[in-house]
Amino acid sequence: MKFNKLLDNCKIYEAGKPIELVVRDYGVDTKDIIKLASNENPYGTSPKVVEKIASLSKNMFMYPDDSMYELKEALGKKFSVTSDNIIIGSGSDQVIDFLVKAKCSENSKMLMSRTTFAMYEIYGRQAGAQIIKTKDDEHNLAQFEEMYESQGADIIFLCLPNNPLGECLDRDDVYAFLAKVDKETLVIIDGAYQEYASFKDSKKRIDPADLIEKFPNAVYLGTFSKAYALGGMRVGYGIGQTSIIKTMYKLRPPFNISTLSLAAAIEAIKDEEFVQKCIALNFEEMTRYEEYAKQRGFEYIESYTNFITIKFDSNYLSSEVAQKLLERGIIIRDLTGYGLNAIRITIGSKEQNTRVFKVLDEVLEDLKKVENL
Amino acid sequence: MKFNKLLDNCKIYEAGKPIELVVRDYGVDTKDIIKLASNENPYGTSPKVVEKIASLSKNMFMYPDDSMYELKEALGKKFSVTSDNIIIGSGSDQVIDFLVKAKCSENSKMLMSRTTFAMYEIYGRQAGAQIIKTKDDEHNLAQFEEMYESQGADIIFLCLPNNPLGECLDRDDVYAFLAKVDKETLVIIDGAYQEYASFKDSKKRIDPADLIEKFPNAVYLGTFSKAYALGGMRVGYGIGQTSIIKTMYKLRPPFNISTLSLAAAIEAIKDEEFVQKCIALNFEEMTRYEEYAKQRGFEYIESYTNFITIKFDSNYLSSEVAQKLLERGIIIRDLTGYGLNAIRITIGSKEQNTRVFKVLDEVLEDLKKVENL
Repeated sequence: MKFNKLLDNCKIYEAGKPIELVVRDYGVDTKDIIKLASNENPYGTSPKVVEKIASLSKNMFMYPDDSMYELKEALGKKFSVTSDNIIIGSGSDQVIDFLVKAKCSENSKMLMSRTTFAMYEIYGRQAGAQIIKTKDDEHNLAQFEEMYESQGADIIFLCLPNNPLGECLDRDDVYAFLAKVDKETLVIIDGAYQEYASFKDSKKRIDPADLIEKFPNAVYLGTFSKAYALGGMRVGYGIGQTSIIKTMYKLRPPFNISTLSLAAAIEAIKDEEFVQKCIALNFEEMTRYEEYAKQRGFEYIESYTNFITIKFDSNYLSSEVAQKLLERGIIIRDLTGYGLNAIRITIGSKEQNTRVFKVLDEVLEDLKKVENL
Repeated sequence: MKFNKLLDNCKIYEAGKPIELVVRDYGVDTKDIIKLASNENPYGTSPKVVEKIASLSKNMFMYPDDSMYELKEALGKKFSVTSDNIIIGSGSDQVIDFLVKAKCSENSKMLMSRTTFAMYEIYGRQAGAQIIKTKDDEHNLAQFEEMYESQGADIIFLCLPNNPLGECLDRDDVYAFLAKVDKETLVIIDGAYQEYASFKDSKKRIDPADLIEKFPNAVYLGTFSKAYALGGMRVGYGIGQTSIIKTMYKLRPPFNISTLSLAAAIEAIKDEEFVQKCIALNFEEMTRYEEYAKQRGFEYIESYTNFITIKFDSNYLSSEVAQKLLERGIIIRDLTGYGLNAIRITIGSKEQNTRVFKVLDEVLEDLKKVENL
């Protein structure tokens, strides 16, 4: 059967390997598996959220409140915007999908950093858009500016901080760039890890209300999957001027969030203390990874997120390191697919990280031996 | 800001009003509200599923198993197909979205019954497809055949049984029609309410494995939202030949189903006894609606689902009936938007239906009085 020809250029996102798969494929015991591949919050979900969901599990037969009144009210209050400035997605990546499909058609152009969240390109190709990338892997605003001036763009993506590398631009630099962008260009500020970045350095903090007031062509994206520890529940949001939000609603399928996911997000917002505690622990543990890398002479990217990217020199291949770790039950992300000889590791709990350092040492030793044979 | 011009023709789906909204807008007490607008299973979710979810609520921080291995295995076993024949969607309507976007582009044509599930047209317009509808509201295969022959179609939708009207074609007639359809035309058999239809009359039963073997250009859609009582969890599926399923995967966003939704669906399949009991109760209660309609002299459509469509003559306007019911806390669906002077009522539990009959009598009496003034 013939299909839409746009699909010929479409790529499929490769998700972090789930624990179930490692059990199935490598026979590792579930209890021995450490998954640090998808930047999940290693401290679990807020006990208050867990309790709420258990108490609501009887309500699964009812469709969700499709107006999402309560969640939008809570987000509006948190960010000092109105409910009309908010759209909820099944993860913030569904909001990316809405934005790309709303703005782009064949011959549209999307500008992004060379190494950034893979879904931008995937949704762009589905819409038939041309993908333009900067030369540098990390965000480089001078390159963004140069390419925007020479080639133009219908959408510009800025991932602040950037996944999968971890770096983050300063807000003032971002604003200076946005001031030069045409109002017909949609700018997507992906703040999936903003809670981490603004905790570490207030210069990185993007305030959604301030952003969309100053730049009405910008949309801010947030998620409950990372700091709010709801990766399994698929809730994200977009904040923008009402005209943009209203247009996106034309593409939102009804009931795009499950009843329990809505309830979990509403409850998670209430337990800000839990979130801040998790973030503080994250950066405490991050220093151990930095120390580890320094001691072994590995380069790493300073991270404003809950993961760290460690680069290897020619002595090691990141794909081999990742595979060996996997066989020992430690799931991390190999960045070979991004053209980098590097791995991305989610910052786990203290115990998890201690084990990662130990097993990683063993793996590196093993690989060195093979080399020396 | 300028957007994709296809959006100019897009419509937004109007969901059944949630209980929360009636509480907010009409000040009715939550406990007094009966929602029979979205064809939810009035007997709640299987207690086994409820228990499972409560026990898993701690796992919300982990991303779902994106391979959906266990659920696809369970569905494969249930329907005698392989996992490669299955794709899971956030409700079966996400599978419709995948299929429409995979097959259609501007100038494509989609053929459907005049009054059928609204999302077919909504997704079609997003893709820029031309919507062709039969003259009759209910499915009329002679009209399908005639229009297909004269105009052609890239996709044909058959909703078996049909939402929002409730009628259902016989399998043999459907097969006879499909035999005349070109193999390049994608045929979507929407079986969202098939469990009800095949319970009531085996001649209506569509077996997905048999369907896709005989007609490799057909895809079967099923859902956990109706008989399986998981409307709030958003899980549906498509069953088709691997080449079609594989193509759809290019459009499936990662993690399109939440961790708890996956677990709920897996558990729901195991409790077939609960499902069959709910369906039996549904048809027992359905006869009460049929009796009610007959006694009041209202026409109704014989239904193979968990809802019934009651038509009014010129003495009543369905929009007024629906509004008056709403003010008294009973939420049903007015079909004025479909060009029909009719209401669609989900078959509730015994107690709910008894109250519906009482309040509906009051409402009809009230409306008659106004008429007579």
